[in-house]
Formats: sequence, structure tokens, C-alpha cells
Amino acid sequence: MKLLAGERLDKLFFCGYQIIQHEAEFAFSLDAVLLAHFAKVRLDCQAIDLGTGTGVIALLLAARGAQAITGLEVNTRMVGLAQRSVDLNHLGDKIRILEADYRYPRRLLSLLPAGSADLVVANPPYRVVGTGVQNAKKSVALARHELSAALADVIAAAAFWVKYRGRFAMVHLPERMTEILCLMNQNGLEPKRLRLIYPALDKPANMLLVEGVRGGKAGLEVMSPLIVHNTDGSYSDEIKGLYFGP
Amino acid sequence: MKLLAGERLDKLFFCGYQIIQHEAEFAFSLDAVLLAHFAKVRLDCQAIDLGTGTGVIALLLAARGAQAITGLEVNTRMVGLAQRSVDLNHLGDKIRILEADYRYPRRLLSLLPAGSADLVVANPPYRVVGTGVQNAKKSVALARHELSAALADVIAAAAFWVKYRGRFAMVHLPERMTEILCLMNQNGLEPKRLRLIYPALDKPANMLLVEGVRGGKAGLEVMSPLIVHNTDGSYSDEIKGLYFGP
Repeated sequence: MKLLAGERLDKLFFCGYQIIQHEAEFAFSLDAVLLAHFAKVRLDCQAIDLGTGTGVIALLLAARGAQAITGLEVNTRMVGLAQRSVDLNHLGDKIRILEADYRYPRRLLSLLPAGSADLVVANPPYRVVGTGVQNAKKSVALARHELSAALADVIAAAAFWVKYRGRFAMVHLPERMTEILCLMNQNGLEPKRLRLIYPALDKPANMLLVEGVRGGKAGLEVMSPLIVHNTDGSYSDEIKGLYFGP
Repeated sequence: MKLLAGERLDKLFFCGYQIIQHEAEFAFSLDAVLLAHFAKVRLDCQAIDLGTGTGVIALLLAARGAQAITGLEVNTRMVGLAQRSVDLNHLGDKIRILEADYRYPRRLLSLLPAGSADLVVANPPYRVVGTGVQNAKKSVALARHELSAALADVIAAAAFWVKYRGRFAMVHLPERMTEILCLMNQNGLEPKRLRLIYPALDKPANMLLVEGVRGGKAGLEVMSPLIVHNTDGSYSDEIKGLYFGP
């Protein structure tokens, strides 16, 4: 595999796959890894990753046993990067990367029919435009701020593709939890599992993982807290397990 | 203070107040104590406790400095019990107990005008009628199941009384979090602080504390997790502090 200028090759220790990242683009971080492990994966599952970026979540879902994953990505350069990572790991029979804007799911009807997915995952831009500092690199800003897709778009796309009893799993900010839970409920993706990520035992949560079930009845399980750092600052055993495998 | 048959006198160690409870009625537990400490209390605050029961939350709010607290209670026997606990602790100038059904706030307009409260607190019945086992003691069932008031009633009453920039604080079950956050948002009590109570570090949450601000803008802080038991089963220091004081 030939790397181009600005690219580097990183290893996903959990599964041994390699992934290409670019210094000018958004690089994956803990949230993507957490989401890929939080989602319930069945062997025969048809999965869609909304805004796949580097493709890291698609790779990790394949490593966890998913057989058919479609990664949608609107940024042309990221599409190329993700596709090369798929090829590098010989995962072309399991993962396809499509250049597409998931705000318009009907444009993809021939490739991805409505109600065809067992699982939709999303690690979307977290911040409303106008809040926080916007990254000067436009492609990074696209991944962080809701420039190309807002929360309502992500959830509407998930609702379009998730089949009855299928699941939608997302990582996002706790500060937007009210909006997230209400939109999921309104879109028929009833929140069933939620996990809060705390940087340390004495800190407020800084991420949330949520799973909704299409047609699920009301009733949410708030799972045990996920603590990232021990009191001495080292990574907790759970986090080490996710990065490096069991 | 003369106790009647079936009554007992318990001590609130945090403040030294005494409280009368009755074996046939709902006895307060950890959730009430947690709520009384979670609520933000200002010295001059006008507070309302929806469904005051034994009056424990009203007593603890007084201990924390609240100067004017109204406890509303629909169960006649509990009204008498709570009033006697108020008298016993010489808190009649700070706490009034009213026999009233908070589903009809307009009936109380002369005593409690709309938008008159800085703080409304509620430790309401948690369970939808038809779920879980209903207690054979009718008065206990009233406190646990939504026989006399449902979640929407509690939040509507809070929205009626909380003034602009005033607060509503509630303890409830995590499994109903979606409904809670959506109803608060729809009723103009924007969720601003949420704390999850985990029985132990490796267990799902079994209680939530939530605070909404009337007219608040979107944006929720999910506070550090409150862990009830240490790994050896003993109470955590935080819980001991709430029960026994600093």
C-alpha cells in the first residue's frame, strides 16, 4: 500500500486491521471506537454507517462479525481514503463505501432501499453551527460542526433505513441528550439503551452512546457508567480492552 | 410528641430533625434524600413540594436554608403526619402542609399563584399503572404507582408554578428518561442538570435526578455519576455524607 503525502498508516489493535488517515482530515478518536463496540452486531446484519469518514467504524463492525456494511460519506477525499483502507484489509466483500449525502436517502433507494438495514450507526458532527470554535480546515469542520447535516437529518436518515425491530446506534454529546431522545422517539426509533462516558469518576459525562429500536416500546436502560481514566490518570481496563482487544 | 398506634419516630441525622412515619404508609427512602440535596436552594426561595408524603423533603429543604416551603399532599393521613412532623421540629413558620391534589393547580390560585415558585420539587409515583406489582396497601400504591397523578400531571403542575428562571427538580426512574426529558422540554422546563444514580460501579442506573429551568436554553449537564455502594457493599462516602451530614 502506497501512502500519499500527508497520510499515515495506523493500526486498529483490536482486530489487527490497518487504517489510512490524513493529517488534513478528521482523524477518528475514542468516540468511534466506543460506538463500534456498543452497537449490537449479528453475523447476518446489514449495516449502514452514516458519515463513515476514515471508515474506522465500518472496519470495526466487520471485525465484530458484520457481513455487509455500507459506509456513506459526503467528503470525496474521505471516500477515497476509506475505500483504500477497505482494500488494504481485503474487506471489499463486506464493506462498500459510497459517496453520498445521507440527507437525501431517497436518492439511494436503488442501492439502499428504505427499511433495509438491521443496524444504522452514526458518529455525526456534534456541534450546532455557531457554538464552539469551528476548525479552520473545512473538512474537519464538516465532521465536527453541523454544516452538512444536523442531528435531525441523522435521525431522519436512520429512521428511513432501519427496518422494523432494527437498531440505530449513535455516539454524541450529553449536552444534547434531550434533543436526541425526543427526536429518536418522534422518529419511531425508541431509545432502549444508553451509556454515559465519564472521563473520570468525579467528572461530568462528555459522551453518550444511545441505541434506539424501530417499533420498540418505551423503557430505557441506562447501563453502568463507562469510566475512561483511573484516578491515577491511566486508562481503565474497559477502555484498554476496546483498544487492544480482550 | 405523642405517637399513635403504628407510628414511629425517625431521625434525619443530616439536620437533627425528627420525622414521624407510619407502618401502613409509604416511608421515605434514599430517593427523597437525594432529591432534597440535589435541588438548588436559596435562602429567600419559595419552594413547593408536589406530593410531600411524610414531609421529609420539605424538612430537608428547610435544613438547607429554604425559608418558605409548601408541601402539597392528597392523602389525608399523610397530611396529618407531615403537619405533626413540622410542628415537632418547630418549623411552622417555614413549612406549610396543604391537603390538595396538584393535578388541579388552579384550585390553589389564592394560596399559590401561578409562576410564584423559585423551586418546585417532586418525588412522584414512578410506575405506570399496570407495570410492576402494585402494593396491597392503597396508600403505598398511591405513592408508587400513577394512580392519582401521572408524569405529565407532575410536570404540568411544576410548569404552572415555577417562575421564569425558576427551577424544577425531580427524582425518577432512568427507564422513563425519554418521556421525562421530552415532557419537561415541551412544558418549557428545559432540562439543565441530570445526575444518574448507580447502585454500584458495574450496575445500570436505578434512579435519576433532573433539574429543569423555566425559559432555560437547550444544553444539559450530565453530572458525575453518583455511586451508592462501594465494591465491598458499604455505602460510598457521598451517600454517607447525605445521610449523616458533612
